[in-house]
Amino acid sequence: MLMVANRYTHIADQLRVQIGRGLLAADDRLPSEAELMTEFGASRPTVRLALDILQNEGLIVRRHGSGNFVRQPVERITYTDDKLSEDTRTTVAAAVKVPVSTKVVEADNSLCVLLGVPRDTRLTEYVYRSYQGSTPYSLARIYVPAGVLAADVPRTSASPLGDDVRAALTSSGVQLAATQSRITARLATAEEARTLQIGTGTAVLDIERVSLDPAGRVVEAALLVLPSYSAQAVFTTHSLVRDLEAA
Amino acid sequence: MLMVANRYTHIADQLRVQIGRGLLAADDRLPSEAELMTEFGASRPTVRLALDILQNEGLIVRRHGSGNFVRQPVERITYTDDKLSEDTRTTVAAAVKVPVSTKVVEADNSLCVLLGVPRDTRLTEYVYRSYQGSTPYSLARIYVPAGVLAADVPRTSASPLGDDVRAALTSSGVQLAATQSRITARLATAEEARTLQIGTGTAVLDIERVSLDPAGRVVEAALLVLPSYSAQAVFTTHSLVRDLEAA
Repeated sequence: MLMVANRYTHIADQLRVQIGRGLLAADDRLPSEAELMTEFGASRPTVRLALDILQNEGLIVRRHGSGNFVRQPVERITYTDDKLSEDTRTTVAAAVKVPVSTKVVEADNSLCVLLGVPRDTRLTEYVYRSYQGSTPYSLARIYVPAGVLAADVPRTSASPLGDDVRAALTSSGVQLAATQSRITARLATAEEARTLQIGTGTAVLDIERVSLDPAGRVVEAALLVLPSYSAQAVFTTHSLVRDLEAA
Repeated sequence: MLMVANRYTHIADQLRVQIGRGLLAADDRLPSEAELMTEFGASRPTVRLALDILQNEGLIVRRHGSGNFVRQPVERITYTDDKLSEDTRTTVAAAVKVPVSTKVVEADNSLCVLLGVPRDTRLTEYVYRSYQGSTPYSLARIYVPAGVLAADVPRTSASPLGDDVRAALTSSGVQLAATQSRITARLATAEEARTLQIGTGTAVLDIERVSLDPAGRVVEAALLVLPSYSAQAVFTTHSLVRDLEAA
């Protein structure tokens, strides 16, 4: 029975090598499941498990009804802090498309906990879905209490993680005194897997970010979901001695 | 063929509910594969895929030769910065056992890049394997150039992530001027899966940490591997205004 596990791992290894060597290049379609079954003398479930592995590693995209394609390698998003200003920020090397949708929602239980507001508080929700080429690679939901900033409706953004909402807060006179980022790794949920065209076995970086004004009120909160192969978070801590020299 | 995927997901769901309700409690042994095959009318590969899912979620531990057990829920490690001092630090709520092994190694390619030292530079390597009860839950490799601090040999530690190496540096007069933590999510490697008793489909938080002295020399580097269910990283950024008030 160990054969089963070894079989699909072996098929995944073979395909990974072909992608690594460029025999299968970005946007190339992989052989069909039927062709792979013949090539490797394997059953359909075995071939599918092999394809699951490659999808979870971010090497292929599975498009329902049209087959499996080698994923365009993406430039990594770097989510970073900038300790001597008030901000976190995002750096992205390549051009991204970021359609933004905006609506007013009422805080559910988890948002009440995140923002420290009473249930049913009205919040503006900004949903940022970023793409590099046609490849989705990040999902960000930003929440701002309705009383803090009126909802405007950006249609697109240059920032995949909502930096322009933070800029809008600052320029409207709301001071971001402290920002806390809570980072965990987990597997994608079924909904995230659909949205990001990844498998549910894909590791994602999950960042909950909360920004406080000088009075300790939460003025912005964000839920960021970044597939493992598309993002890193970088934080730099300087010693107090250096802080004073810099200041 | 969709049946195959639905079948093992269904079995995983049923077992997850039993664990959630406490019908299967921490350290309980799950029914054997043969019993699960009978109970769910499923093949052995299907049962094994269901168990893989639960292992990757950190709900069960698979002990070769003795069966599958409900994993002890662990207190999460919090990896955090302390911006107004020179340090990052780790907080752990519950008692952990941390055996430490120490040896002198020569820098390979990846360590040369991480530490910015020439190939074959001698480094002291401290390997921290932490356990909560009998459950392994973190793996840390700390590297200090041999010229910076003589290798001492701690046998155990209270810190799963090598904070005492940093304390030893500071108390021997080495100043940690800046620390950068680079955080990614990924799936466990086969070796990590063995060491941490997790599946290779488990998401882990991967933290590369580098500390510089005031001259910009790397005096300590760390590779931290934390399974998704046992750790979070938290970083707080204060605005410059608050920095100056605090200073």
